[in-house]
Amino acid sequence: MTASREDFEARLRQIGAERYHDLHPFHDRLHNGKCSPEQVRAWVINRYYYQQAIPMKDAAFMSRVDDPALRRAWRSRIEDHDGAGDNEGGIKRWLRLAEAVGLDPDYVASREGVLPATRFAVDAYVRFVREKTLLEAVASSLTELFAPKIHANRIEGLLKNYEFANDNSLAYFRNRLKEAPKDVAFGLAWVLDHADTAEKQEAAARALVFKTDVLWSQLDALWSAYIEPGRIPPGAWVPGEGMLLRRAG
Amino acid sequence: MTASREDFEARLRQIGAERYHDLHPFHDRLHNGKCSPEQVRAWVINRYYYQQAIPMKDAAFMSRVDDPALRRAWRSRIEDHDGAGDNEGGIKRWLRLAEAVGLDPDYVASREGVLPATRFAVDAYVRFVREKTLLEAVASSLTELFAPKIHANRIEGLLKNYEFANDNSLAYFRNRLKEAPKDVAFGLAWVLDHADTAEKQEAAARALVFKTDVLWSQLDALWSAYIEPGRIPPGAWVPGEGMLLRRAG
Repeated sequence: MTASREDFEARLRQIGAERYHDLHPFHDRLHNGKCSPEQVRAWVINRYYYQQAIPMKDAAFMSRVDDPALRRAWRSRIEDHDGAGDNEGGIKRWLRLAEAVGLDPDYVASREGVLPATRFAVDAYVRFVREKTLLEAVASSLTELFAPKIHANRIEGLLKNYEFANDNSLAYFRNRLKEAPKDVAFGLAWVLDHADTAEKQEAAARALVFKTDVLWSQLDALWSAYIEPGRIPPGAWVPGEGMLLRRAG
Repeated sequence: MTASREDFEARLRQIGAERYHDLHPFHDRLHNGKCSPEQVRAWVINRYYYQQAIPMKDAAFMSRVDDPALRRAWRSRIEDHDGAGDNEGGIKRWLRLAEAVGLDPDYVASREGVLPATRFAVDAYVRFVREKTLLEAVASSLTELFAPKIHANRIEGLLKNYEFANDNSLAYFRNRLKEAPKDVAFGLAWVLDHADTAEKQEAAARALVFKTDVLWSQLDALWSAYIEPGRIPPGAWVPGEGMLLRRAG
């Protein structure tokens, strides 16, 4: 039976309450200052791979949309990440964070040393958006519903617990606090409008579950490689690599 | 500079010596009888996902090959897994192993409970073969060069250490001992013939490295979920689920 709009929205929000990666112990550790500098660097390197793939994901979505209005509405997501006009964009802001934690931004941007499991998860997301229905593609973006809370917690936790944290290095998260709500308001309304049968509601809910898997598995891989048991897979970043060499004087 | 045929083959074999998943501590644990029944089941469930995807990978390869002779040579791989004539095929043999370790084969075949990281890695492999050059696709299959040793070790180790192990339950591995050498002899010769520039040799070597990542990351995910720290991701198999209900009498 098709759920009411309100009940279906509640179902989507419940998926976040049960599966969003704010529940993963890595974030508790990160936000409470319990990560070593090396563990923070590992997170910055791997999370970069996710960030840089998002515009490709959004371009793949747009390449399948034949409604110019929808394409236009979506395009701002690419601009938010890749930059436009005076806006340097989220990817460059993330590289400022990389620099602040002592990493060479060119190294991070090279995507060397990223965990294979991170690549697999992120690439699975891009492919999902390229291959599934548009409804599923939009629904998979709705983890943004749950992002403002984690970003606010992160800014507060990082500022309190780490020397590298300041307005410059955390600019990425502050900007996302502004950008994500407009995107998700659009995406949520679109999904609620288009998931007009029980079958489509089911597909949309599954797409959101899939996306929570994409996020969660990245943190599991990070934990496995750099926390416990701390076994770094062959070829992945080893602490000490990719550091910023500061000029004397 | 283009390496000689012998040097290039040695380079490919060295990739296996350094990165093949026989080096992963999970296999040491499995083959030495140190896995609990639940850990063996988790391996069987997750490895099934890899097995069942292999014919899709091979069909994706064949769908891009316009040389009927090459298609024919490749087709036996699909038959080995999906079955043909009297040969039940590797996938059914794997389900016999599932049954022998107490799992409901229908549950395993449903692919419920598979770790998201396993799905991402395996799906990345299928996509790699669909999208990369044919040379890279064939080169990625060359992990079979290193498989006979691990299969022989596995048969010996499982027979010695686990009650479930016998000729019936281990039929999958015994068959692979026969099948893999013919496949890999063909694949290796094809790669050595076609990688006739330094650039192509580099691409082929990278493809083989990629494939070792696919295999290794599956074991890392298994370890993370079911051994250490033993944190099972949301939605993944929980011990006790999917068990075979034996009929009374």
